[in-house]
Amino acid sequence: MDIVGKSEVLYKKEDLISYECDGYTMYKGMPRAVVFVKDTQQVSDVVKCLNKEEIPYIARGAGTGLSGGATPLGGEVLISLVKMKRMLHLDLENRKAVVEPGYINLKLTQSISDKGYYYAPDPSSQYACTIGGNVAENSGGAHCLKYGVTTNHILGLEIVLPSGEIVEIGEEGVPDRPGYDLLGLLTGSEGTLGIVTKVTVKVLKNPEGKKTVLAYYDDIDDASQAVSDIIAAGIIPAALEMMDEVAIEGVESAAYPVGHPRDIAAFLLIEVDGIAAGIDDQIEEILTVCKQNNVREVKVAKDETERGLWWANRKMGFGAMGAISPDYLVQDGVIPRTRLPEVLAKITQISRKYDLRIANIFHAGDGNLHPLILFDASVPGESERASKAGSECLKVCAEVGGSITGEHGVGIEKSAEMRFIFTDEEIAAQTNIRDVFNPEDLLNPGKLFPQPGRCVEVTRADHEEIHLVP
Amino acid sequence: MDIVGKSEVLYKKEDLISYECDGYTMYKGMPRAVVFVKDTQQVSDVVKCLNKEEIPYIARGAGTGLSGGATPLGGEVLISLVKMKRMLHLDLENRKAVVEPGYINLKLTQSISDKGYYYAPDPSSQYACTIGGNVAENSGGAHCLKYGVTTNHILGLEIVLPSGEIVEIGEEGVPDRPGYDLLGLLTGSEGTLGIVTKVTVKVLKNPEGKKTVLAYYDDIDDASQAVSDIIAAGIIPAALEMMDEVAIEGVESAAYPVGHPRDIAAFLLIEVDGIAAGIDDQIEEILTVCKQNNVREVKVAKDETERGLWWANRKMGFGAMGAISPDYLVQDGVIPRTRLPEVLAKITQISRKYDLRIANIFHAGDGNLHPLILFDASVPGESERASKAGSECLKVCAEVGGSITGEHGVGIEKSAEMRFIFTDEEIAAQTNIRDVFNPEDLLNPGKLFPQPGRCVEVTRADHEEIHLVP
Repeated sequence: MDIVGKSEVLYKKEDLISYECDGYTMYKGMPRAVVFVKDTQQVSDVVKCLNKEEIPYIARGAGTGLSGGATPLGGEVLISLVKMKRMLHLDLENRKAVVEPGYINLKLTQSISDKGYYYAPDPSSQYACTIGGNVAENSGGAHCLKYGVTTNHILGLEIVLPSGEIVEIGEEGVPDRPGYDLLGLLTGSEGTLGIVTKVTVKVLKNPEGKKTVLAYYDDIDDASQAVSDIIAAGIIPAALEMMDEVAIEGVESAAYPVGHPRDIAAFLLIEVDGIAAGIDDQIEEILTVCKQNNVREVKVAKDETERGLWWANRKMGFGAMGAISPDYLVQDGVIPRTRLPEVLAKITQISRKYDLRIANIFHAGDGNLHPLILFDASVPGESERASKAGSECLKVCAEVGGSITGEHGVGIEKSAEMRFIFTDEEIAAQTNIRDVFNPEDLLNPGKLFPQPGRCVEVTRADHEEIHLVP
Repeated sequence: MDIVGKSEVLYKKEDLISYECDGYTMYKGMPRAVVFVKDTQQVSDVVKCLNKEEIPYIARGAGTGLSGGATPLGGEVLISLVKMKRMLHLDLENRKAVVEPGYINLKLTQSISDKGYYYAPDPSSQYACTIGGNVAENSGGAHCLKYGVTTNHILGLEIVLPSGEIVEIGEEGVPDRPGYDLLGLLTGSEGTLGIVTKVTVKVLKNPEGKKTVLAYYDDIDDASQAVSDIIAAGIIPAALEMMDEVAIEGVESAAYPVGHPRDIAAFLLIEVDGIAAGIDDQIEEILTVCKQNNVREVKVAKDETERGLWWANRKMGFGAMGAISPDYLVQDGVIPRTRLPEVLAKITQISRKYDLRIANIFHAGDGNLHPLILFDASVPGESERASKAGSECLKVCAEVGGSITGEHGVGIEKSAEMRFIFTDEEIAAQTNIRDVFNPEDLLNPGKLFPQPGRCVEVTRADHEEIHLVP
């Protein structure tokens, strides 16, 4: 408290309740305290103080994470970065901006759009999530098919290491930095290697033009084939999204209904951007491919308003599940694009096996699936069934040569599933690196990796307190 | 010898001479032996055997590296990967290929171009350099402005660790792998963390169209301004190269003269690719920008033959210096694009100070400079002056917020210059990671990082033997 002042520390139970979890609500845990820091030096001082007392701690941004990365498992102190929310420097000529970690993702684009620039990574939570959190999770978004995920847009970081030391990594936009790629290593390390205190990001020039297509399909395999054919034609759309029947039922019951037909099997939302002259040709080609794959109806957004509504409807996707189910669990697998039909069929089998509806909303273009498993936590046993169904979906992804997370991170949720894709040696190669940065394991312990030698099965939160099974 | 057979080991002095250095010829050292391996298991067995005997070793590809990464400093055994040169798997539908490390870069594009695909990273040595070497150095090329360097094109690696263990990293083309980004960490680690034995790379669809512009300038500042203005206009050319007067003298005296005027200050070589419909508009815009910046003459390649000649002339760049100077030293700095005129002026000052001609060939679009310092090693003191001038060029790059290497790596050449951009703590953060993978420091010792506590100033090679100053 001497470091940040009494007003910047929460420690009463009633104040701490909203910090029991992040956007992944299946597990909850009570933090020891929440500390709001306002600059890098304070982060360093707080970390040094916690080290001395051997108290574990976690950095937290907006708490929109979907895998429990910022959820306390064993009474950690949360270091909240939301008050470090300034833009420190904007250099449009060299296409970069320097922001504090609590700076909100969407605010960056909003603050430079009048000058013709934007920040590319656009997670659906971008109105709330922070750039620091995006770095920790290496967040993606609908447009990462063409523009890449967060790691492709980070030029430099300032980090407070678990020792309390402050280091700068990267900084300038050079195509190949000498030495090891620490910038890549830190990005997506889920808050286990250091605390980000400053971020230099790339900003991009707005594309000259942009057009958006909506295609309705009676058969989901036709939609999947259209996805493959569009990519095979050499087009790289800015976004190529798919939603299935159950997902459509959700978004049409939520805040931004578009009037999608309720009896289709799936729709594709396809956006093309770039040099104005090239766009019309690409749109023509996309329309042709859609028609060749038995599309029921296909249309181009007639203006910016219609385009905006289609995207608002899509970005409501996860939240909209609340309109058709008391609870839902979002999964995040990745598969080779060509295996889409086969994997979707297996997800349908999983849905039947566990007697739970599964909605599919996904970044089809890069094979990043989001099966949303609908359940009712008040029905005994349903939460467990949902969790098992989710894990089985990830197993299917791993079995076709994919991965257990596309953009939401491992956190608590998928730490056991890391074994689907990594051998013991491969996990050891990673935890050895963690030990270099974080030798006492006080920073965000128990996350990201399966815990050898001890059982970290945290029992499901009863919305009151956490039970740690040692 | 029991592992690979007697015919696969070189150990006589006359056989070892051509392995004394790689493409960086300022330092040379005699290896203890050269071992040619033919598969992953052999690499693992050789590494285990060398570990047992505590003999240091280095992996070597084609030996085209430009910073001495594969040069023995202290009697290391060279493990040559040139016989592991097969393509193991090609999956065009999912846009990837799996190759052995000794597979030659250009061969990949040649083997898939008839099907409409190519491999993007194109170092000027691509006719000889290997994909494994490209991974070690994170190689770039003329087209990395638009397409990124090697790390942006690697999907997976198989690695033999210094322990002899074989691990797989990555493998599928997923946008965000869980856990730490080991793929990024290994790529560009200059052979100090492990030996690459298999590489999964992305292949890209050929662009629909491609056009190339050549612009001659009387004033190099006008050319620099044109570079900035093209990028500022929102165009991302596939390549945006610059060559100055001395460099032009070189390439016009070498194998592929184009007939560039000898009295210009610089030319720009600009290539645009993508969807056919968009290209003409971009070319129009580029021509306008060139003219606004006082171009003397600007033209578009009239056909594929002319375009090919322009590129052959450009790619001869480094080698062409041999036509106008007995020796040359190529440097590899990176600067923010907007600082070009100021840095070029400083390089001219360095040229005067050391009384050595400096040619400039560079990837202007991404601020990656290649000052070529011309000297005559037979003149006493000139090598030392060239080396100092090179170091001073890098210092200028570091001072304007740039970096000491864009794509050639640190190796022996720039290990001391790492201090221009990294603090002791930042270097320690990196060497701590090396120690995790390479705890005995038997794999490629003495490279990449400044050597604390001991002097690694290797005296300049006298073309006979190496003197290690301990």
